[in-house]
Amino acid sequence: MNTTQTLNGPAVSPDGCYKLSQFEAQVCQELAQRATALKNGAAPQTKPGKALGLLFLNPSLRTSASFQRAAARLQLELVNLNGQGVWAMESQEGAVMDGNKAEHMKDAAAVLGRFVDVLAIRAFPAGEDLESDLTDPVLRGFAKHAGVPIINMESTLWHPCQALADWATLDQHQVPKPAKFVLTWAWHPIPLPHAVANSTVCMAAQRGMEVVLLHPRGYHLHPEILAEADALAESNGGTVRISHDREEALEGAQVIYAKSWGSLDTWGDSAAETAQRANLRDWCVTSKYMPQGAKFMHCLPVRRNVVVSDEVIDGPGSIVIDQAENRLHAQTALLEKLLS
Amino acid sequence: MNTTQTLNGPAVSPDGCYKLSQFEAQVCQELAQRATALKNGAAPQTKPGKALGLLFLNPSLRTSASFQRAAARLQLELVNLNGQGVWAMESQEGAVMDGNKAEHMKDAAAVLGRFVDVLAIRAFPAGEDLESDLTDPVLRGFAKHAGVPIINMESTLWHPCQALADWATLDQHQVPKPAKFVLTWAWHPIPLPHAVANSTVCMAAQRGMEVVLLHPRGYHLHPEILAEADALAESNGGTVRISHDREEALEGAQVIYAKSWGSLDTWGDSAAETAQRANLRDWCVTSKYMPQGAKFMHCLPVRRNVVVSDEVIDGPGSIVIDQAENRLHAQTALLEKLLS
Amino acid sequence: MNTTQTLNGPAVSPDGCYKLSQFEAQVCQELAQRATALKNGAAPQTKPGKALGLLFLNPSLRTSASFQRAAARLQLELVNLNGQGVWAMESQEGAVMDGNKAEHMKDAAAVLGRFVDVLAIRAFPAGEDLESDLTDPVLRGFAKHAGVPIINMESTLWHPCQALADWATLDQHQVPKPAKFVLTWAWHPIPLPHAVANSTVCMAAQRGMEVVLLHPRGYHLHPEILAEADALAESNGGTVRISHDREEALEGAQVIYAKSWGSLDTWGDSAAETAQRANLRDWCVTSKYMPQGAKFMHCLPVRRNVVVSDEVIDGPGSIVIDQAENRLHAQTALLEKLLS
Repeated sequence: MNTTQTLNGPAVSPDGCYKLSQFEAQVCQELAQRATALKNGAAPQTKPGKALGLLFLNPSLRTSASFQRAAARLQLELVNLNGQGVWAMESQEGAVMDGNKAEHMKDAAAVLGRFVDVLAIRAFPAGEDLESDLTDPVLRGFAKHAGVPIINMESTLWHPCQALADWATLDQHQVPKPAKFVLTWAWHPIPLPHAVANSTVCMAAQRGMEVVLLHPRGYHLHPEILAEADALAESNGGTVRISHDREEALEGAQVIYAKSWGSLDTWGDSAAETAQRANLRDWCVTSKYMPQGAKFMHCLPVRRNVVVSDEVIDGPGSIVIDQAENRLHAQTALLEKLLS
Repeated sequence: MNTTQTLNGPAVSPDGCYKLSQFEAQVCQELAQRATALKNGAAPQTKPGKALGLLFLNPSLRTSASFQRAAARLQLELVNLNGQGVWAMESQEGAVMDGNKAEHMKDAAAVLGRFVDVLAIRAFPAGEDLESDLTDPVLRGFAKHAGVPIINMESTLWHPCQALADWATLDQHQVPKPAKFVLTWAWHPIPLPHAVANSTVCMAAQRGMEVVLLHPRGYHLHPEILAEADALAESNGGTVRISHDREEALEGAQVIYAKSWGSLDTWGDSAAETAQRANLRDWCVTSKYMPQGAKFMHCLPVRRNVVVSDEVIDGPGSIVIDQAENRLHAQTALLEKLLS
Repeated sequence: MNTTQTLNGPAVSPDGCYKLSQFEAQVCQELAQRATALKNGAAPQTKPGKALGLLFLNPSLRTSASFQRAAARLQLELVNLNGQGVWAMESQEGAVMDGNKAEHMKDAAAVLGRFVDVLAIRAFPAGEDLESDLTDPVLRGFAKHAGVPIINMESTLWHPCQALADWATLDQHQVPKPAKFVLTWAWHPIPLPHAVANSTVCMAAQRGMEVVLLHPRGYHLHPEILAEADALAESNGGTVRISHDREEALEGAQVIYAKSWGSLDTWGDSAAETAQRANLRDWCVTSKYMPQGAKFMHCLPVRRNVVVSDEVIDGPGSIVIDQAENRLHAQTALLEKLLS
């Protein structure tokens, strides 16, 4: 097991949004309330003359659409770039750039920081070297070099906009703070990043919920993430525990949040990871695993009938489309705050 | 021949624009007149606070440019997504998504419908299975699941914005309603979709023209499309007939509209289709095939000196750039209507 | 040596911006001053109702971001297209288009010209045939067919927006007009276009500087470019000379502008070009090659520790990020002028 490695990247400036837990629970709650107010028709606090940059180094549908609309609602000037159109980027400090990467992240960051007031970035892990991925190199690098606040649109480690939208969604559906919240691993054809899982367990802990992290052996989250979730729970009246037993974990749950993620033990070794999950294909949320009256959550996109059955995601407990809609309102609220 | 298969997708809600013929001829005429007024300097009816989504699953130049500008003219908030940046999409109902497609169309539709007031989509046929393509799965799927009006920016079956722009172009060039209008097939190196051909023959029929559909044997349009064109002609004082004889068909024509499309008989079988068209390369609109004073039309992009000779498309009868410009005005008029 | 070939494309209309030297030095100086005023907080002269089109046929980060922001600052309506989303384009006059290119440049130009008031295009050289590249076919083709003013966002031969931003940057850093300005070639893993080198040497000459063009034998610029630089220097009190000796050239220089470019002698022959530059890898701007107090300039993106060492580009003389920021202000000033 490799996870004695630490999350040892450079510090991230607190005036942007790198992870949701950088804010006190009270601030998160206010942002979620503001998101709900915006959903219910409150007028956005427009910021004419201010500019938002979006840089997508990975695919996006919800995130791109919701940030474009949030920018428009706030009358922000928008600079929208995606990875298909920009130069391949180097992120290693001191690299001799004689390969196929034409631009260093630190230059891209410094340049874009001159064009906008706040810069949002999506950068998934490279998925080859765990030690490097755990430093969250692109997000932390941009935060260090951009000279303006950075918003994380999903990095190796965190997806704070999703977490804030999810918090607002739980509020809107009147899920009590002490309710049992199960984040369950699911099978998926390829190993996925940990950002949503990390952000979800920490969000629910910070909201003061009874959090159960349910996964097969070998699919633990990083120990420092778990320690952070524990600390957030302790400060906010919640609990976090791990389970490997679906029946036990799901009993009495009011929320089932499904997500797949790759094993840290076999990170970067696709054959080993495939072998490791070969017998786990029944880790799919079917109606058999949905307690009566429970809500079903997922960040989308989701592999239907692989991660969750059609019956569950199309059923009455599913609130996945509300989660997605709340991306717009949560991000609008966050931008209002960062640009105020 | 496979075309006993029917166009059997789910119904499409009438509050968007799936095909031009969903509107009465009088409404089409008013939209075309409004497009012409906008071209001549009328002020657009702005819709501040409303949002338009564009989702391109295939390449686009005219459509993307004209919708971006139309949105700006109407002060719409724009959410602009293209297929290079979004997740690969599954469209089959009930699919077990363990392949390479990360998101189901129905989820993408439901999510985007929460972010915008009207959603425009381009989705060409997959070109493998005729039966599936004839259901127009992506457009109909989005129309079913988005919860907001859908605009078709070219699907398997229809291209209504092109048809409306063409109607306005015919008006602006004072082509009489009873004039002879020939839609002629042309050779092309690869088999193309039927959307423009279907929309063109129905548009001209609904405008009350003397429509001749000219193509080699084996390149018929779908029988249900022809039946629809016949019905439209009958209601609006026009006629539709098929010809395989270029000389006869083109005699006295006031409009020659060129377009290539693939054979329904060999749909999805590229080798067979190539063989089928091997001897048809002289189906190119050269000056020899242009009656004196006739207008030349094409939706663009066009293969020069393959579908049409430089001499014709650059000649005095060519109105292809006006057609393209009218995309902007037609779509502005359509958005005014749909958002009023 | 192939460079007896001339730069023989069609003339470019003077109401757009094809190259910086199309403007008199006085006009360039006024544009640079306006850029500086905008940087210092002057209000842009907004152009509501006017539209700018951007067409990127090659990657872009700075150019796309800075033009998007400039458009927003001027309240321009924006049509933004990139090569990933549009049809592959033919640029040869009279081509029989039965290959893989779906649209002719002349049609794309004519169509886009109907949608916007000014059209900006990025089109790098194909890099195969020197004679064809030297005609700058895409930019000149668009200029001929668009019917609206064209802005060059980097073509085979010129990058005027970079040159104008660089002029403003020199002013802002109070580099005297008669100062010694060295444009030095640098090694790079692949042969690059000449646009920045051409534009830089002509900009510095037109600004009246003591210009030294420093490169290994075999890496000369095109004779007609050099002749143009000479003429610009002569009219504006500057000088231009060529050197192959780094020590001599760099002595007393106040500005070192680094850039790599490919050899005209082996254009299109990648193996020959690689062999030609095999022993030139030490053409990298390290601190050894930086005179005391000199400024370091580069257009970005830059290969760190290949074209320039980290020590130099991150050092106190480096003004590369200011150059990039000035792209925004220079382009805003240019658009104000073209749309006034």
